[in-house]
Amino acid sequence: MDIASVIGLVLAVGGILGSIMSGGAISIFIDVPSILVVFLGLVGVTLYRWPMEVIKGLVSIAMKSFFFTAVDPKEKINKIKELAELARRESVFALEKAEIDDPFMKKAMTLAADNRPPEVIASILQMDIDSMESRHKTGSDVFGGVAADGPAMGMIGTLIGLVQMLQNLSDPSAIGPAMAVALLTTFYGAIIANVFANPVKNKIEYRSQMELMSMSIVIAGTLGIVAGENPRMIIEKLNSFLPPSERSSDDDGGGEE
Amino acid sequence: MDIASVIGLVLAVGGILGSIMSGGAISIFIDVPSILVVFLGLVGVTLYRWPMEVIKGLVSIAMKSFFFTAVDPKEKINKIKELAELARRESVFALEKAEIDDPFMKKAMTLAADNRPPEVIASILQMDIDSMESRHKTGSDVFGGVAADGPAMGMIGTLIGLVQMLQNLSDPSAIGPAMAVALLTTFYGAIIANVFANPVKNKIEYRSQMELMSMSIVIAGTLGIVAGENPRMIIEKLNSFLPPSERSSDDDGGGEE
Amino acid sequence: MDIASVIGLVLAVGGILGSIMSGGAISIFIDVPSILVVFLGLVGVTLYRWPMEVIKGLVSIAMKSFFFTAVDPKEKINKIKELAELARRESVFALEKAEIDDPFMKKAMTLAADNRPPEVIASILQMDIDSMESRHKTGSDVFGGVAADGPAMGMIGTLIGLVQMLQNLSDPSAIGPAMAVALLTTFYGAIIANVFANPVKNKIEYRSQMELMSMSIVIAGTLGIVAGENPRMIIEKLNSFLPPSERSSDDDGGGEE
Amino acid sequence: MDIASVIGLVLAVGGILGSIMSGGAISIFIDVPSILVVFLGLVGVTLYRWPMEVIKGLVSIAMKSFFFTAVDPKEKINKIKELAELARRESVFALEKAEIDDPFMKKAMTLAADNRPPEVIASILQMDIDSMESRHKTGSDVFGGVAADGPAMGMIGTLIGLVQMLQNLSDPSAIGPAMAVALLTTFYGAIIANVFANPVKNKIEYRSQMELMSMSIVIAGTLGIVAGENPRMIIEKLNSFLPPSERSSDDDGGGEE
Amino acid sequence: MDIASVIGLVLAVGGILGSIMSGGAISIFIDVPSILVVFLGLVGVTLYRWPMEVIKGLVSIAMKSFFFTAVDPKEKINKIKELAELARRESVFALEKAEIDDPFMKKAMTLAADNRPPEVIASILQMDIDSMESRHKTGSDVFGGVAADGPAMGMIGTLIGLVQMLQNLSDPSAIGPAMAVALLTTFYGAIIANVFANPVKNKIEYRSQMELMSMSIVIAGTLGIVAGENPRMIIEKLNSFLPPSERSSDDDGGGEE
Repeated sequence: MDIASVIGLVLAVGGILGSIMSGGAISIFIDVPSILVVFLGLVGVTLYRWPMEVIKGLVSIAMKSFFFTAVDPKEKINKIKELAELARRESVFALEKAEIDDPFMKKAMTLAADNRPPEVIASILQMDIDSMESRHKTGSDVFGGVAADGPAMGMIGTLIGLVQMLQNLSDPSAIGPAMAVALLTTFYGAIIANVFANPVKNKIEYRSQMELMSMSIVIAGTLGIVAGENPRMIIEKLNSFLPPSERSSDDDGGGEE
Repeated sequence: MDIASVIGLVLAVGGILGSIMSGGAISIFIDVPSILVVFLGLVGVTLYRWPMEVIKGLVSIAMKSFFFTAVDPKEKINKIKELAELARRESVFALEKAEIDDPFMKKAMTLAADNRPPEVIASILQMDIDSMESRHKTGSDVFGGVAADGPAMGMIGTLIGLVQMLQNLSDPSAIGPAMAVALLTTFYGAIIANVFANPVKNKIEYRSQMELMSMSIVIAGTLGIVAGENPRMIIEKLNSFLPPSERSSDDDGGGEE
Repeated sequence: MDIASVIGLVLAVGGILGSIMSGGAISIFIDVPSILVVFLGLVGVTLYRWPMEVIKGLVSIAMKSFFFTAVDPKEKINKIKELAELARRESVFALEKAEIDDPFMKKAMTLAADNRPPEVIASILQMDIDSMESRHKTGSDVFGGVAADGPAMGMIGTLIGLVQMLQNLSDPSAIGPAMAVALLTTFYGAIIANVFANPVKNKIEYRSQMELMSMSIVIAGTLGIVAGENPRMIIEKLNSFLPPSERSSDDDGGGEE
Repeated sequence: MDIASVIGLVLAVGGILGSIMSGGAISIFIDVPSILVVFLGLVGVTLYRWPMEVIKGLVSIAMKSFFFTAVDPKEKINKIKELAELARRESVFALEKAEIDDPFMKKAMTLAADNRPPEVIASILQMDIDSMESRHKTGSDVFGGVAADGPAMGMIGTLIGLVQMLQNLSDPSAIGPAMAVALLTTFYGAIIANVFANPVKNKIEYRSQMELMSMSIVIAGTLGIVAGENPRMIIEKLNSFLPPSERSSDDDGGGEE
Repeated sequence: MDIASVIGLVLAVGGILGSIMSGGAISIFIDVPSILVVFLGLVGVTLYRWPMEVIKGLVSIAMKSFFFTAVDPKEKINKIKELAELARRESVFALEKAEIDDPFMKKAMTLAADNRPPEVIASILQMDIDSMESRHKTGSDVFGGVAADGPAMGMIGTLIGLVQMLQNLSDPSAIGPAMAVALLTTFYGAIIANVFANPVKNKIEYRSQMELMSMSIVIAGTLGIVAGENPRMIIEKLNSFLPPSERSSDDDGGGEE
């Protein structure tokens, strides 16, 4: 789990609660009918927007994005270096029995050990990437929908409150509190969109990018192994995926071989 | 029909009605001239935006997206496995007489049985995909137009109401109700956009993606059959369309063959 | 002319006028300085945004999009079937003398009769498509500009009105009417954008799509004829451009030939 | 210089000034601190957004887009026809000495006269197009930034004015004028964005498109000349860049040759 | 460091401060709970949006974009000319020992000296470009997130302030100052987005474009050297990256060679 997420959530919620409590009781920010319209409305519209099979996977996607620890691409590159050396020393068939934790890398190496032609390996693995990206895209779209529907439901709630208040202006002392309550739904909608839905959407998209990079490293590495390239040359290529400062030093001046 | 849609619609409308009724009579949210400007205006602009042939297909598109039950891609893959085995056992010509419910898969197999070259099969089927996507794109654009025009007509209605109210401030007790009525059109517009048009647009787009995936499975499978590939290898490829957790188990370690 | 456009415009304008008149005299919605700022400003900015040659073609583009009757793609397909049969019976040279109304199809068939290589035919016709799309894109951009500038000019007008009103609050009874007048420019801007400019933009874009489809049918058909394909096979391919329900019946099970 | 630009600017500014003066003195729309925050802020943010070398070229880009007179693509086509006939009559080497005003066409013809292979000519000229597009893209982005920052600075100014007014409500008669002044920055921001920055951005983009078309005509023509194509056939191809109504008549029925 | 950035930041902040101070004490624009909600909330949401490894690199990215001095592409071209002449005079192997400051050009020349095939050189260097673009894209996305979250947190703070004020209208003289304080968070959010986050985002994107151009020049030059092209012809090609006015004069009429 990423420690930044926890600190971030605590800071954001803490800042908002602190600001609320420094100005009065927190109870004036809780109103049941307002919660009704925003939360029921939002859950309803989300259920209505997406088929059941997407909804089911939602909690798991949100959790994964929260507890997601980025895979270090350097580790992937080191593992591929090891496998490339194994394939050189013995043969590509040895990759079959190599111990590999990452199921995608396992699949890639099994395809290599099967002696499949490179285009076939690339196209099968690319389909895995496309499928991963499309699943993440749906997850990100769901939270994007929540980030749009939350404020929309908030605005609908505020309009309901304003219409009711304006139809009944006989008691001037009730106008202020009525407007305050009307604004609460807008407040809930803004919190849902900006403190929850948008950051989760962002995390899913970033995670998708990271997995894409990690899978691209595996594909490039596997194709290098299948082509019988020198392990050093493979690593030199894969190093381009890393920021210059993190590239393994024995690649600098990669031309000495 | 997708059960999530029904629950969702009931929750969203229920939440809004509940919030309205907890604060007073529902009658103050009904105003005939406001309905006139938003609904007539919206229907008018929509008719004006699109030619007749698009309008005609509208209700059917909306209904389909509502009652749409997602085709399970696993079923498609199993059917293709069956057909691939049939083609192996007998010949591609046997595909002609195979019983196939899905008209697109039927067309693909007929093309395969006709012994057409793979590029021709791929390009004919791809044109079907393009045509399906373009039809769905129009449907999604229509509802996107409604989601934009609804609030716009609501704002026009509110401006009309405000101008009329401001021109006639002689009776202070009428100001509140007049503003309430002016806000109703904005309220109607927000409901139309967020509770109806946007979710339907979303459903059409998701359905289009699902059909695209399903048709892509059929094309990839047909090309595999035509190329005389091993049924297991075809299924292994098609499994990439599924999320890892749903892939059929006999594909794991697909290299044992 | 598309009947939906007329009905739509009548309904939209009617709904707005009905709503205005149900609440008072229509005269309070007419204010000369407001019209001055919105209309002169909008015309000015539009003239300033685009060079003269674009402005000149504007009215014609708007008219065409309004009076545009969609070409039935089925008719195009039938005409191509006829020409394909002619080319089969006699030779491609016979296409030269065939009677063809559509100038683009005429050009395509003349190129075919000239015995030009297929790549040359495709690239010349594709340039016609690109040029048509770019002209329509400019038309759509102009109306998109109007849809953005209308409300912007409306907001500028409203700001002018508000500043003038706020500088002179000495007569309380004048505040309401002054604000009403200030809001009129926003109202004009909203009408211009949502009732005129956006639907016209939409119509131009849809028309462009329809012409693209129609021209793509002609290109695909011409290339089929030049390649000496069987007329039935050509039609089978072109049918993919149509929605499944409209495909000509003799294509169903297109493999019997 | 495009006459539409002048008329347009006069109309837009005139409409706004007319509307202001019909309602009172123009002096109430001038406030020094408001000008300070919007203009200094906008200049500051723009300087901060872009490096010095972009800022330097700014005035020249804005001027060029204003005084830009569109090159008539027909002229380019006629010039190319002339050059194609020259190359036919004599040889491509004669192109070296041909008198050509347009430096890009000059460069293209020099490359042709140098007998460079067509791919080399195309790739060198394409790099010129990419470089022209990227320069125009930066110009358009700068004005897009101004169009976004103007209203943003206006809103910051209005917030400053509102906060100051609300902190000091002791003199009721000062509230109106204070709010009027607060709104002025929003007004300035809206004028900057909608009357200046957006139209200039639009002009730059349109000019870029026109230059792209003009340069594409030169490339297509040069490649035709290098390939030794018939001048009539070259013109027939280039005519596709023009709207159908402007194509030179001897192209109609381009198959008679 | 770019002098325009310093002048720009001073002008923007100075303009805002000047406007504030011309209207009263600056102290009314400072409120601790408002700062709490906007700054803590913004830091929190940003931490929550991005994983730790991105956050860590943030300050460095912001600093780099601020102190970034654009590399003059002309210098790169001159250096490549020098190297191309060296390779001509001696051989590509001489490039190994050439003194090159830019690590990317060094890498390119080492690859050239290693006698790698051009496709391999191009694909390895292209991966470096992709990796650089993806890192800059993340940096730009982070500041884009700040530019969106700042105003969102500002709006949440303003809603909190408004709700608290409306619940407690008993003291009329407190309403104004309470609203003023409520507006402060919106003000802070607008400053953060428009004076800090957006310009930094813009600088990162522009810098990314400049590096892309610079790296593209190196790739094109290296491929030219590897292909054994004439140095003058290489420079002629690379000159297309420069605006016409800056091209080195010996390229005009590049065909004299």
